[in-house]
Amino acid sequence: MSGHGKHTIHSDCIHHGWDNSFKPRITIKPGETVEFETLDASSGQLSKTSTAADLAKLDLGRVNPVTGPVFIDGAQPGDALKVTLLSFKPSGPGGAGWGWTGNIPGFGLLADQFPDAKLHHWHYDASLAPAMYGPGGRVPLKPFTGTIGVAPAAAGLHSIIPPRNVGGNMDVRDIAEGTELLLPVEVAGALFSVGDTHAAQGDGEVCGTAIESSIDVALKFDLVKGANLRMPRYVTPGPVTSHFDKKGYEVTTGIGPDLMQGARMAVSEMIDLLSKRFGYSPIDAYMLCSVCADLRISSIVDVPNWVVSMYFPRIVLE
Amino acid sequence: MSGHGKHTIHSDCIHHGWDNSFKPRITIKPGETVEFETLDASSGQLSKTSTAADLAKLDLGRVNPVTGPVFIDGAQPGDALKVTLLSFKPSGPGGAGWGWTGNIPGFGLLADQFPDAKLHHWHYDASLAPAMYGPGGRVPLKPFTGTIGVAPAAAGLHSIIPPRNVGGNMDVRDIAEGTELLLPVEVAGALFSVGDTHAAQGDGEVCGTAIESSIDVALKFDLVKGANLRMPRYVTPGPVTSHFDKKGYEVTTGIGPDLMQGARMAVSEMIDLLSKRFGYSPIDAYMLCSVCADLRISSIVDVPNWVVSMYFPRIVLE
Repeated sequence: MSGHGKHTIHSDCIHHGWDNSFKPRITIKPGETVEFETLDASSGQLSKTSTAADLAKLDLGRVNPVTGPVFIDGAQPGDALKVTLLSFKPSGPGGAGWGWTGNIPGFGLLADQFPDAKLHHWHYDASLAPAMYGPGGRVPLKPFTGTIGVAPAAAGLHSIIPPRNVGGNMDVRDIAEGTELLLPVEVAGALFSVGDTHAAQGDGEVCGTAIESSIDVALKFDLVKGANLRMPRYVTPGPVTSHFDKKGYEVTTGIGPDLMQGARMAVSEMIDLLSKRFGYSPIDAYMLCSVCADLRISSIVDVPNWVVSMYFPRIVLE
Repeated sequence: MSGHGKHTIHSDCIHHGWDNSFKPRITIKPGETVEFETLDASSGQLSKTSTAADLAKLDLGRVNPVTGPVFIDGAQPGDALKVTLLSFKPSGPGGAGWGWTGNIPGFGLLADQFPDAKLHHWHYDASLAPAMYGPGGRVPLKPFTGTIGVAPAAAGLHSIIPPRNVGGNMDVRDIAEGTELLLPVEVAGALFSVGDTHAAQGDGEVCGTAIESSIDVALKFDLVKGANLRMPRYVTPGPVTSHFDKKGYEVTTGIGPDLMQGARMAVSEMIDLLSKRFGYSPIDAYMLCSVCADLRISSIVDVPNWVVSMYFPRIVLE
């Protein structure tokens, strides 16, 4: 299904994990665009009728499917693959606008404090109006690609879970419409894949999941020859938090000598605040933070203590 | 100098370090406001004519002076001191609108890579128009209090450098005009002090200094009885990056299993980008990042690798 430099790659072309021996599903030239159909992060294991018990039984070998790989003509190790994110359109076998957020046992920043499976179903409008999370939460949406990357040079199958220098499961909220992403190419043709689309997320994705939702994505591909990047880079076309920030933020802090412990403290403090002030159960507060609150490093030089802050957008609850 | 619940505390009332045996300079009631004169972070050791050699000789026992302490009537351990940041007015013995950014040997996120002292002088307008940093940099200003806190319960003199659970040298960019800060009170009267004012800073303050500048600050004090906070919290009245974000961001990433190493990688990558594209020397790029670029934790759950990102506002250079 291609013509005039536009291609479509369907959601039956998914794979789990990264492997540079995977056969390309499509070959394109620099300058061309591709529309990708995606599956949600459960690979369709969860549906509108799923329960927390289903989440607890998730086959983790089948999570985070990505659609691809795409072979880009002329891409060589040392080049950068420039990916322009053109558009996002909610889709999915269960109908557009369904998504889920889950607390998966053993996964997430506070996994030790929240051992039980919990599943929240989202139903959002294709116009991307804010989505509800009771009591009273209205989460602004901004779709993006949680997993986007190219094949690593190292042979064999690599887990889809960790992000790495060639991208992958970065879960970067701002790799959204209009962003230009540069990925270091390590193998001929780059072997690009994308998936794990999210309707919204805060920086950190603290409970381990965002608003997980099938969204079709249109991407344009170019090459920057000999860029020799060490890590992914990206450029955003404008503000990145204007959907969240109009009413300001409630902010909690974690101060101490370890950034990870600081992040955990800041999130625990925000859960405490949301529970006491707005009536959320602790686990709901935790999951709500994951889809809309941002972790920032406020200061990292005043030895031996650093400040990690969690910014919760007041527009969600006020 | 008080009347009708308004007080002024002058910059001769400074102290270095925190100690709950310091005698209060002024006693106020909840609901009252205080105007604080501050000294810059060098305690006046640096001036408009200082050089990098002067910076290298800085007496670190006299840095980060704070003005105070203020005794707040009725404040008791377990309460929170609510500080509303009313207004900021550039001042200083050298005339309003002078500031400095320094790379102090041995201090800063990349101290190992930048061992030499470097001093940049800023001259900014009292109207807070963007300040210049050549070649071509225009840094939007947003004054805030780098050091703001109360005395710890633990006896003795505590270094001013590290922030701690009672606040202090937090260097949180968004403790700015209109923000309401809550600090945990640990001693009777709270013993509040403030200083280390900055005309601008990015989240992280990566080179170790911001735009260090004397700025008079007006603050209002209230008590929240029995709040029992573990850490400082704050509420911002609106967006926190609208001075930076209109043209979007250049973003670099550091991906790996350690947040500190990820932050160092993201900053190194941004220095590389700014040097190659805009002609900054690496140390100037580093110091420019410190005053306007933000460190964010983009994802912190995809074991074993996290993504730390550095956001450089394009409005500074485009």
